[in-house]
Amino acid sequence: MGAEKRRGVQTIFYEKPPVILGTGSVAGKKESEGPIGSYFDVVAEDNVLGEKTWEKAESAFARRAASEAFSNSGVAPDKIHYLFGGDLLNQCTGTSYGIRDFGIPFIGLYGACSTMALGLSMAASFIDGGYADFCAAITSSHFCSAEKQFRFPLEYGGQRPPGAQWTVTGSACAVVGSDGEGPVIDCVTNGRIVDMGITDANNMGAAMAPAAVDTLLHHFKDTGRTPDYYDLIVSGDLGLVGKSVVVDMLRKTGYDLSQNYNDCGLIIFDREKQDTHAGGSGCACAGLTFCGYLYKLLKEKQLHRLLFMATGALQSTLSVQQGESMPGVAHAVSIVVPS
Amino acid sequence: MGAEKRRGVQTIFYEKPPVILGTGSVAGKKESEGPIGSYFDVVAEDNVLGEKTWEKAESAFARRAASEAFSNSGVAPDKIHYLFGGDLLNQCTGTSYGIRDFGIPFIGLYGACSTMALGLSMAASFIDGGYADFCAAITSSHFCSAEKQFRFPLEYGGQRPPGAQWTVTGSACAVVGSDGEGPVIDCVTNGRIVDMGITDANNMGAAMAPAAVDTLLHHFKDTGRTPDYYDLIVSGDLGLVGKSVVVDMLRKTGYDLSQNYNDCGLIIFDREKQDTHAGGSGCACAGLTFCGYLYKLLKEKQLHRLLFMATGALQSTLSVQQGESMPGVAHAVSIVVPS
Repeated sequence: MGAEKRRGVQTIFYEKPPVILGTGSVAGKKESEGPIGSYFDVVAEDNVLGEKTWEKAESAFARRAASEAFSNSGVAPDKIHYLFGGDLLNQCTGTSYGIRDFGIPFIGLYGACSTMALGLSMAASFIDGGYADFCAAITSSHFCSAEKQFRFPLEYGGQRPPGAQWTVTGSACAVVGSDGEGPVIDCVTNGRIVDMGITDANNMGAAMAPAAVDTLLHHFKDTGRTPDYYDLIVSGDLGLVGKSVVVDMLRKTGYDLSQNYNDCGLIIFDREKQDTHAGGSGCACAGLTFCGYLYKLLKEKQLHRLLFMATGALQSTLSVQQGESMPGVAHAVSIVVPS
Repeated sequence: MGAEKRRGVQTIFYEKPPVILGTGSVAGKKESEGPIGSYFDVVAEDNVLGEKTWEKAESAFARRAASEAFSNSGVAPDKIHYLFGGDLLNQCTGTSYGIRDFGIPFIGLYGACSTMALGLSMAASFIDGGYADFCAAITSSHFCSAEKQFRFPLEYGGQRPPGAQWTVTGSACAVVGSDGEGPVIDCVTNGRIVDMGITDANNMGAAMAPAAVDTLLHHFKDTGRTPDYYDLIVSGDLGLVGKSVVVDMLRKTGYDLSQNYNDCGLIIFDREKQDTHAGGSGCACAGLTFCGYLYKLLKEKQLHRLLFMATGALQSTLSVQQGESMPGVAHAVSIVVPS
């Protein structure tokens, strides 16, 4: 016994790679108007799905995304052994209120914007470990609940500096199974916390970038792969600033990311036309971009090998007010189409 | 493949039960004056370990508890493959700032006061699954940071109703391994979210009790065990009110918990002498009671079979203000001394 599957220092290789059987994606109006807007399963034109508060809306998005994922994967909720999920609302209420009625054993996660990759890695590990036939991973974020909680009241109309990102409104859910048709998770690299001392809460891409670099370096070292192994490498929501930091830092270590690397925050919005400054962010940024868009490219075999790495900044408003820097974490999931 | 280890509907049985190799416990002054005060590894007489804010203090408690656990287990941090943890501060900063310097791959959890049991279940699953040789589980809470965040400023001097509980100040960490001497985790039952519509945030024991009952019933059904299989069954922090609800509800289903069931919130404080109303609560309540006290009884073979079930209430202040009820969850870990 012991860590026989953990051949790399930080990477788990699955003996029988778990299959992503289906996804659900529910997006807000602005997200539906972006470059990948036509891919989402459901668009909430009112941004609240009829709910009276932004927080209840975020939970409604999560409930709907889970329902879509169950339906699209053909796996009923009572067949799902564990649901892994979380979000950035205080005490992760977006998720827990959203999924409370499904009656699925619930493993609450906290990974900030890395939650979709963290959830996929946990789901795959529980399936390959023999603990479950089916698991689900879910996350959500909402521009209005996030601005209210983390920044300023919307009514205040605060100016946003150029490095600021725009929280994505939406929820995404994936169902993973031990058997079936679809792209598979062949290995995952869960990350360590990296804190380079950045304290500007309007520059989270730069705060998370060193964690992304740390996870990528471990992934390449553990797997023996180089960036060109993948058709596409995506980070979660580093945005324009963080993306350039990652490319620069990796170049210095001998890895060239200039050809096939992008960031979900730059995929989901058209920065210039949609006035989102440095790009999208929030748990749903990586969630929607993967579940709504990239998963479908994998299904259609337009992509064959994807490294999906979502990144999270682990500060709170209070920790920043108390002068703390922002620790980052990044979790990477390798998803391939069986040949 | 598939869920071959998951013989019960909601219970994972481990093929080679992971061993709890050592624990670390750091407690506040009030906790050190309670019935189990002499068992804790470290007591912070100043309640802040020299830090300037309660939140920084909570992280310092976590850092110290992890160090104690690494030392007591004889497992250095660079041997630990994954650290599972979380807490109740917004964005779980107690944990992430506390453990950021250890460089261990970090799986952030959100289980509110159920976090210690949730972390132990994840650690055991990752070890039995072959993904790790050593894992750690950690959690923390602090009376002052919790009152500030969830209730009233301490200076306000608000009266506490009789059903209110007292947040435990402390942090607890356990190191779990694939081999070695010590009590083992033979199976775990992760819980579903149960929401019975309770909206009184000063009566969280009652809100969490139905989730505890749901998890206990699944555990007994999945394992074929009855309550008398265990020397002791403990819930996390239901307190006096929630404990009586659990005993009553289980009696109606034919299970007698009157002989060997207690609650960590009633073990850690002397309710009458220490003026803690319905008992202790907070992530550290179950954490400290298990890692600081019950683990040592298992090591000394004063206990042979323990069902450690921590319970969490998943609301936020905002969700309660918006009229939402409080969903509960409970995770149960069966810990036995090998004969």
